[in-house]
Amino acid sequence: MGDESSSWIVGLDIGGTNMVVGLVPFEGGPPLALRKLPTSPAGGGKDVVARAADAIRSAVDEVLRDTGVTRDHVLGVGIGSPGPLDRGTGIVLETPNLGWVDFPLRDLVSRAVGMPATLDNDANCATLGEWWLGAGRGSRFLVGLTLGTGIGGGLVIDGEIHHGASDAAGEFGHMTIDSMGRRCNCGNYGCLEAYASGPNIAARAVEGIRAGVESVLVDLVDGALEEITAATVYEGVVLGDPYAQEVMNETAKFLAVGVANLINALNPDTVVIAGGVTRAGDHLFVPLLKEVRRRAFRSAVEACRILPAALPETAGVIGAAAVFKKDTFGFL
Amino acid sequence: MGDESSSWIVGLDIGGTNMVVGLVPFEGGPPLALRKLPTSPAGGGKDVVARAADAIRSAVDEVLRDTGVTRDHVLGVGIGSPGPLDRGTGIVLETPNLGWVDFPLRDLVSRAVGMPATLDNDANCATLGEWWLGAGRGSRFLVGLTLGTGIGGGLVIDGEIHHGASDAAGEFGHMTIDSMGRRCNCGNYGCLEAYASGPNIAARAVEGIRAGVESVLVDLVDGALEEITAATVYEGVVLGDPYAQEVMNETAKFLAVGVANLINALNPDTVVIAGGVTRAGDHLFVPLLKEVRRRAFRSAVEACRILPAALPETAGVIGAAAVFKKDTFGFL
Repeated sequence: MGDESSSWIVGLDIGGTNMVVGLVPFEGGPPLALRKLPTSPAGGGKDVVARAADAIRSAVDEVLRDTGVTRDHVLGVGIGSPGPLDRGTGIVLETPNLGWVDFPLRDLVSRAVGMPATLDNDANCATLGEWWLGAGRGSRFLVGLTLGTGIGGGLVIDGEIHHGASDAAGEFGHMTIDSMGRRCNCGNYGCLEAYASGPNIAARAVEGIRAGVESVLVDLVDGALEEITAATVYEGVVLGDPYAQEVMNETAKFLAVGVANLINALNPDTVVIAGGVTRAGDHLFVPLLKEVRRRAFRSAVEACRILPAALPETAGVIGAAAVFKKDTFGFL
Repeated sequence: MGDESSSWIVGLDIGGTNMVVGLVPFEGGPPLALRKLPTSPAGGGKDVVARAADAIRSAVDEVLRDTGVTRDHVLGVGIGSPGPLDRGTGIVLETPNLGWVDFPLRDLVSRAVGMPATLDNDANCATLGEWWLGAGRGSRFLVGLTLGTGIGGGLVIDGEIHHGASDAAGEFGHMTIDSMGRRCNCGNYGCLEAYASGPNIAARAVEGIRAGVESVLVDLVDGALEEITAATVYEGVVLGDPYAQEVMNETAKFLAVGVANLINALNPDTVVIAGGVTRAGDHLFVPLLKEVRRRAFRSAVEACRILPAALPETAGVIGAAAVFKKDTFGFL
């Protein structure tokens, strides 16, 4: 091996719906041989690992063929997974969305592909990915928020993921913003996720329609309200539907409460927001920034950039590979 | 000088109501020659500085007389002040409670006493004080919360205060816990401080009484409801008054939302709670811990001790001196 500069690290980003695989250059850069496949957790964890390993092997073969490097230039696999998890043992402790309990994900992947592997939380990986190569470059205090089926978060301080005392830091989705508010999947009331995750954006939109509001959203799903998703809401916003924009404004306000809380508590220099909802662009960010400015301390807001993710599709893969590099070589 | 181990550092802890001065041994230990005097900000910042300097001179003289060390063994002054402030320039940018704007506190104190000085936020100092010599000893990820006229906070990671991008981190009192909730002094709605600061604990108690609840609190102030303070509420709790305990339970619940949010976001190993409200002891901590366990993730809660402050009167002085030592010598 010797010269790592021409080497590659596999990133494996496992989500509740899809998993993404790609090979990241050792020195950083866009991943090659990207593959996106359904996680399909119903067949159990070992089935997910087997299909992930197939995808990794095929991606590695593609890069070896295209670049002409030898197999020993692929150094290992960085894995990002929903948690909570134990980085030391490589075990996923619990993931409601995937149904795993005490699942030794890291070692199963490592054995299946015959390479060393590391494990970290998916939202931590995405935040480190944005710090390394995306919207968070140069940040000393980076907060990452990923809005999807749930809301994940990560914190990168001076280039290091802040893991906390038990690898559980960054659960910004379960910050209470209304202590008597909407019921959340986690069992509590009023979590940020209960308002601003994709499914909850859709649920709030449907509630208004069922209460009698007229909206193009109904036409977009041919009256089948249960088919309204957060993407339908963005579509309605783009079409100029006032109700869809109202739902978006409310989403921005809830999200702003969470972002302002993080700014007041942590005084980051950068907040990066990722996930499908950022496709709404200014329709989301203009009311979001306005509300954050209203809610957070001026000196803290003025010191902070609030940006959409620069690597919406690949931050997880890049960040998982970055964790492997840092854990193995001690630098990034 | 040479041998710092027999040296002293002055701590000056300026609060909205009182200021406290004391001399802290270089190697750590209880402060000597403690003085507590009213801040009395009405006469302006320079008057506060003049009286603080008098207190420092008299405290230094007392320690020199009692210990027999020479004047050059008093190394300097660490100052803790409400913020926001700029540590680099030593300027307090703004303090609503004291009425200061762009006030060069550090250099005025330094000149008045003829010693070098450092400046940091009072809640940061209190948290570092608890980390150095109090309930937070040995903690790697310490969250400090101080409940008084307002609610301040600090974050000490691996022995370093987390200042954030503009020295504004730790404003846990202005975390929104009810986005449509009670009006806060800061202009927003539903901040933790709007429920759980001393004046707001009292205000909530009075609201119930005005609405017709019977309580021993009325007798404790001879019917003068405007004289009810948080201390009156604790007194009622100790007397076994059901309504006072109800107010305390609600306080615990609001505080628990804030603590759970911090545990979910940061996964600290220790949370130290300081301020008058902790005098309520188990009357506060039992319902508080129960609600935190209900609200925060299990793996994060299990990794975290939630403790009352060990240095309720002196953490600010000790921490201010600790900041001077760290900034000057690079270690604690």
